[in-house]
Amino acid sequence: MPEPLPPYREIGTEKEVRRLPETYTKTASQLEFAEERWIPIPDDVLAAYIHCGRPTPLIRAHRLEEFLKTPARIYYKCEDLPPAGTFKTNTAIPQAYWAMKEGYKRTIFIGGSGTRTKFVNVFAARLFGLTPTVFMAREDCERNPDQVFALRNMFDADLVESPSNRTETGRKLLKENPAHPGSSITVEQELAEEARHAKDGVSIISSFLNHVLLTQTIIGLELKKQLESINEKPTVMVASVGAGSHFSGLISPFMHDYLKKKTTDMKFLGVESETSSKLTNGVYDYVSQPGPLACILVKAYRFSDIPQPPITARGIQVQTTAPILSLLRHLGLIDTRVYPKDERAIFEAARIFLQTEGRLPAPESAYSIRAVIDEALEAKKNGERPVIVTSVSGMAFLDFGEKNRYRNLASLTEAQTQLKYRGLVELVSETVDPTHPG
Amino acid sequence: MPEPLPPYREIGTEKEVRRLPETYTKTASQLEFAEERWIPIPDDVLAAYIHCGRPTPLIRAHRLEEFLKTPARIYYKCEDLPPAGTFKTNTAIPQAYWAMKEGYKRTIFIGGSGTRTKFVNVFAARLFGLTPTVFMAREDCERNPDQVFALRNMFDADLVESPSNRTETGRKLLKENPAHPGSSITVEQELAEEARHAKDGVSIISSFLNHVLLTQTIIGLELKKQLESINEKPTVMVASVGAGSHFSGLISPFMHDYLKKKTTDMKFLGVESETSSKLTNGVYDYVSQPGPLACILVKAYRFSDIPQPPITARGIQVQTTAPILSLLRHLGLIDTRVYPKDERAIFEAARIFLQTEGRLPAPESAYSIRAVIDEALEAKKNGERPVIVTSVSGMAFLDFGEKNRYRNLASLTEAQTQLKYRGLVELVSETVDPTHPG
Repeated sequence: MPEPLPPYREIGTEKEVRRLPETYTKTASQLEFAEERWIPIPDDVLAAYIHCGRPTPLIRAHRLEEFLKTPARIYYKCEDLPPAGTFKTNTAIPQAYWAMKEGYKRTIFIGGSGTRTKFVNVFAARLFGLTPTVFMAREDCERNPDQVFALRNMFDADLVESPSNRTETGRKLLKENPAHPGSSITVEQELAEEARHAKDGVSIISSFLNHVLLTQTIIGLELKKQLESINEKPTVMVASVGAGSHFSGLISPFMHDYLKKKTTDMKFLGVESETSSKLTNGVYDYVSQPGPLACILVKAYRFSDIPQPPITARGIQVQTTAPILSLLRHLGLIDTRVYPKDERAIFEAARIFLQTEGRLPAPESAYSIRAVIDEALEAKKNGERPVIVTSVSGMAFLDFGEKNRYRNLASLTEAQTQLKYRGLVELVSETVDPTHPG
Repeated sequence: MPEPLPPYREIGTEKEVRRLPETYTKTASQLEFAEERWIPIPDDVLAAYIHCGRPTPLIRAHRLEEFLKTPARIYYKCEDLPPAGTFKTNTAIPQAYWAMKEGYKRTIFIGGSGTRTKFVNVFAARLFGLTPTVFMAREDCERNPDQVFALRNMFDADLVESPSNRTETGRKLLKENPAHPGSSITVEQELAEEARHAKDGVSIISSFLNHVLLTQTIIGLELKKQLESINEKPTVMVASVGAGSHFSGLISPFMHDYLKKKTTDMKFLGVESETSSKLTNGVYDYVSQPGPLACILVKAYRFSDIPQPPITARGIQVQTTAPILSLLRHLGLIDTRVYPKDERAIFEAARIFLQTEGRLPAPESAYSIRAVIDEALEAKKNGERPVIVTSVSGMAFLDFGEKNRYRNLASLTEAQTQLKYRGLVELVSETVDPTHPG
């Protein structure tokens, strides 16, 4: 980093904090504040990465380039290949490993209604012989019987429907309302309480904190070697930004070179939704996070405390971005691009990528792809020849029983029928209306 | 092959046939009757294979071995890694390539209600710039709105709901019954008619025929190199058998060595469902197939003409096995194992594999895994140290909107709750009741 991260502070006292709450592993806590340039990857973690298909291929998007008739060279890392189909595998594995090494018997985490993150954490727990404890809101469980079945009957996960009788918080809520549907708030509260009291279990988190971003640098590190092996240097690096671990994992090794002036002519482009454009339109200040982190203040970009209309790409609809990424943005090192909440531009990008590259991106990654396409089309207009690199996460098998998320965009059908594959380029370049910040 | 395949015959005349109906590509027809030992893989096909993650990793199932406490060494090929999550990608790619090279603008094929094969064929068509034409029964379309959405609105596939107005057959059926729900039979009939008349399109088939089995040998060829590189020799090769292209692709290069006496002590084990145990209990005789192949008789094992109760692993519930595999079985070169239709043993295998190896197998591959487990447990009992190899296909993103297929087995829930992960080994060895043929 070009300058030290603003210190974490204890809520109330404002005192500097140099460790994470004890609900996390000691390793996570140490790594959160580590200042070494290199942290070795344990052999067992490397073996598990290989087991999951790492290193992931780097692919030149020849067919997409041809379709766009762009002079840009476009590359993407296939983070859709791990068995669980998502880059979150990269952090789930080391976190489960640390828990196992520190003698815990189970990992404790939240499960959202639609994300695959919980499955990846369950999967990683099983890889290291741990029992996964998942807190999920009751209404999410009722809406997703397939997920519940997979968690309980196939993974033998310890699935807790929140509110539950397992915690004081849950018991209180159930006393007030025995049919309480639960929410992301009850889930975070119960998780925090359970993790505080569990001797055999430890909480894990899937993004936001430094130690999570560290584990995702495997993407950028592999990418760097792969690009070097073909004598290629990126000039634009693109990824969508929720809490920021995917984007950060992609760019970190290249940001280091950029700061050391080993490279110039480099653009780091974070892609956001209008409904959570914290890096573009948010405020950089101390904020607290729900759950086990509630006692800590960290300095980060935050977009809004007002509930936003849900979008298809739920994974990037996060209101606060990781401290590391926030500082980089604050220092002017990161560009951003914002797409409107109707997600029409995103759906087009997913369709183009599917039909040219033959891969179905996760909606979150379709934001990245859209920005890649727009960069490539602008390059064509300006007669530039950028080397654009992104990273694509997938849908994989874990969208169990969940509807094809892109169907949320079915109201766009009429517009789509007018889009014929061959004629799409023109439409792409005409219909783009990205908001360019700063 | 140890002896020539029985010739294909024309229905009615019984005359020998040396080419496929003209609804298929010329390349498919040539390869169907090719006798060369080696057929080179075109560069563009190889590039597409790499694009899809080939070569797929070969993984030693250390965690499964440990769980089973078996002296057997167990390996599996990860055919779950291609973006479409299935080994069918291996044949879809070259077939779309041949169509493109021969100047066709579209590929024509059937789409079942629950298989991913249609998506793989759509995907492959798009990789080579072709339009995919899919015939799907109307009732399947109505049951699977997510699949229809993905096919029509994302892939821009030419999806035909059968019966349709596109063919004579369809128009006749609609006249009789405008609300005709369609079936696998109407789909095959319409496909055959469309393919006969289409100048710009050509039909493709996903298993059964020799040229399909040929394309799947990529699995066994990669496997052979991978095993040689670690000085390992398989003694048992296992895969489930529908029409037989997965099993055949896995074993072919090893069968060759076995027949040339380069290896001994080798068991080729095909795994079947009680509801379609053609290699175990079927009859080896000339049969015809529906659709474009209806005019040809081929000699093959067939189990039953009586409709069978549906099982979860639809992909292996095929009543006729490929001519090549049928001959090998007829010559006594293939062993088989049959599992009962309640699929309880299969569900246990899927759970064990998921919890030990962290991969969710397709139900069809769970049959293979179950047989691997049973072989490994028998080896333990007999004090043997076999090297067991199998190939695992996955669920991937293309189970769009389809329920988690394993939930069909939810009636087994009571039995499962008694199965605790740690105590499963004993239960595994006690509850197995495979039928060992011959």
